[in-house]
Amino acid sequence: MARLVMKFGGTSVADLERIYNVARHVQREHAAGHEVAVVVSAMAGKTNELVGWVNAMPTVTGSNASIFDAREYDAIVASGEQVTSGLLAIALQSMGVDARSWQGWQIPVRTNNAHGAARIEEIDGSDIVERMGRGQVAVVAGFQGVGPDNRIATLGRGGSDTSAVALAAGVKADRCDIYTDVDGVYTTDPRVAPSAQRLDRISFEEMLEMASLGAKVLQVRSVEMAMIHGVRMFVRSSFDDPATIDSSDGANPPGTLICDEDEILEQQTVTGIAYAKDEAQISLRRVADKPGVAAAVFGPLSQAHVNVDMIVQNVSEDGSVTDMTFTVPEGDLEKALKTLDAARDDIGYEVAQSDPGMVKVSVVGIGMRSHAGVAATAFAALANKGINIRAITTSEIKISILIDADYAELAVRTLHSVYGLDKE
Amino acid sequence: MARLVMKFGGTSVADLERIYNVARHVQREHAAGHEVAVVVSAMAGKTNELVGWVNAMPTVTGSNASIFDAREYDAIVASGEQVTSGLLAIALQSMGVDARSWQGWQIPVRTNNAHGAARIEEIDGSDIVERMGRGQVAVVAGFQGVGPDNRIATLGRGGSDTSAVALAAGVKADRCDIYTDVDGVYTTDPRVAPSAQRLDRISFEEMLEMASLGAKVLQVRSVEMAMIHGVRMFVRSSFDDPATIDSSDGANPPGTLICDEDEILEQQTVTGIAYAKDEAQISLRRVADKPGVAAAVFGPLSQAHVNVDMIVQNVSEDGSVTDMTFTVPEGDLEKALKTLDAARDDIGYEVAQSDPGMVKVSVVGIGMRSHAGVAATAFAALANKGINIRAITTSEIKISILIDADYAELAVRTLHSVYGLDKE
Repeated sequence: MARLVMKFGGTSVADLERIYNVARHVQREHAAGHEVAVVVSAMAGKTNELVGWVNAMPTVTGSNASIFDAREYDAIVASGEQVTSGLLAIALQSMGVDARSWQGWQIPVRTNNAHGAARIEEIDGSDIVERMGRGQVAVVAGFQGVGPDNRIATLGRGGSDTSAVALAAGVKADRCDIYTDVDGVYTTDPRVAPSAQRLDRISFEEMLEMASLGAKVLQVRSVEMAMIHGVRMFVRSSFDDPATIDSSDGANPPGTLICDEDEILEQQTVTGIAYAKDEAQISLRRVADKPGVAAAVFGPLSQAHVNVDMIVQNVSEDGSVTDMTFTVPEGDLEKALKTLDAARDDIGYEVAQSDPGMVKVSVVGIGMRSHAGVAATAFAALANKGINIRAITTSEIKISILIDADYAELAVRTLHSVYGLDKE
Repeated sequence: MARLVMKFGGTSVADLERIYNVARHVQREHAAGHEVAVVVSAMAGKTNELVGWVNAMPTVTGSNASIFDAREYDAIVASGEQVTSGLLAIALQSMGVDARSWQGWQIPVRTNNAHGAARIEEIDGSDIVERMGRGQVAVVAGFQGVGPDNRIATLGRGGSDTSAVALAAGVKADRCDIYTDVDGVYTTDPRVAPSAQRLDRISFEEMLEMASLGAKVLQVRSVEMAMIHGVRMFVRSSFDDPATIDSSDGANPPGTLICDEDEILEQQTVTGIAYAKDEAQISLRRVADKPGVAAAVFGPLSQAHVNVDMIVQNVSEDGSVTDMTFTVPEGDLEKALKTLDAARDDIGYEVAQSDPGMVKVSVVGIGMRSHAGVAATAFAALANKGINIRAITTSEIKISILIDADYAELAVRTLHSVYGLDKE
């Protein structure tokens, strides 16, 4: 018997039939004797509709700017999850399962005051735990809590994953099951490399790199929170037939467990290959190599809300000038170049070269900490295929390589293969 | 300067443009220096959509009965007003008016535990009053409060009128303006009698009779509550152009004030003619005239949830048997007859005769307390038109007459005319 948090996203609760299917998944775990709390998103499309109304209102009133504060946005948008939580509770009740919906303010899920992008600060799980012990299923509206101002605060898009992990921490759950439209985390994108395999386990650190690098299974913040609180996450499919799944202790349903690296017995050197498209490269040539120049470059970009990713700066030959290369999202390239042009006198560069249509391919694996030569293998493999490397950055458990987008799929497949990730 | 509660129903907030129009009404009052709180319903159609989902769920899950409890219904259905309150707050903010939305649990609007048909027990208006004093408009989600179980409780359909009156009592408002799709309360239904006139004022007692008798402008409960707490209600149109309305003190915009009879200087004998269609008449012939027989008849009907309206029992000639006549809604006639048949031995009647297709026409007026002959005038006028009277009941301020539905319009026009209510 375990204590479980089950999370279902918008696609899984898109209509009454799918909510019923979710209820069957919950009933299955409940019948197996587990204590269950469920976190649900809004029905697919509902949040977009509500956000659309909010954004349209200033146009309707003829106002110049969107001067409304985020508290009202939150009150409106959070209603989507409220509806789903009630409907799922009714579905469960109709099937004979004791269930009760919970809004963020009822538990309460306490957040900070950053309306629209709030962070969960504390969840008092005591009431829910007591009810779970009596066999009642708690159906919790995801994506929201209540701020210190006693107003609904939403966590930002995709926040339901974070809600689920925070709730799992709050009720000390044994596992947080994330039901989604894929059946786990793969060694790479199966659409790019058909030989990709589902991972049985992946460490929090690796998942963070995979998630932030474009493997969009989970919200990055939820993985961070799971790592901090030691919440084991399990990514699995919501479209499997509940009747075919064994929920008893010790069963091994398909999916990927995200856990502490101690739990991963057979550590691979490389766990997966991630990629991020639509990157643009900017190179500032002959920048004065003096203290403060990095701040002069990236300060203005940050103020312009340009998200800078890879940064490469070589040691200059004579200590006077250097080249500086970095990447930005392709859509921000024009804004970035304008910003740099305006700051040109401060920075003191000779010329700014840019190139859209880049892709960043990353090799991720905790095992590379203790294995030399992982990077060299990647460079050699790409060179063999005639793929030119634009820039390289590395961390303890990741190597990221910037290449022309044309070669993205070839590079992913080549790296996936060279590190032995292809399924047999 | 006054303190006002303004209430807008679902039709008035059906889309963003109409919400904007509501915001203009609010801005107008705010600009005139009044302290303003607004109560809003869900966007037209939204509540029906949500209720539809709730009702469909047991069918989807294959359950036989709707065994869900009303708490979940409430959580789902109350989301409609939540959205409207946020959107109106944003509309006001976009127009430069300081505004804030309030859900029932935030104020709080405390109700009893009768989920789905809860009654408001207390509203703590202190926070809102303080903010109104600073010029902030409170936009309150109607139709809902929070129960002693800390769960959303809805007041039943049409509950936003009651929300508005309760809030007006809670903040000690000078007036509760009910904006609706008509511009006031009329002496009778203008579709039946084109000579109907808008009343400038009507007493609470009269309005209660008019409302419960089928003049569907206001929810009956809201008028009861207004009478108990002495909240002056003003029924007016939400479709008038806000730019054309004078909101200053002493202005006299079109509408009907519902107030204490002391405020009505020139008391008419008869204030209005109401009617209720789709009534059915049941007559029990030769009922034993003994104590307890009324309970034997109406007890079983009440248990079968048949709403009995008019009841007429004559004094029997010899004290042994009597006839008993009463009305029920036409749709409940069959159920009523079955119930009476099952209780036949207990009651001891000889035969039950029934007639659908009845209409109840009522003459309402506080002035008839002190005027003799009001009833006789009605009977004579109807007789003159050859309209047969089936049954009569009277109260202090009302005479109700049951007639064949065929004569409904003629009877209403005849009575409207004979009491001098026709406009010149």
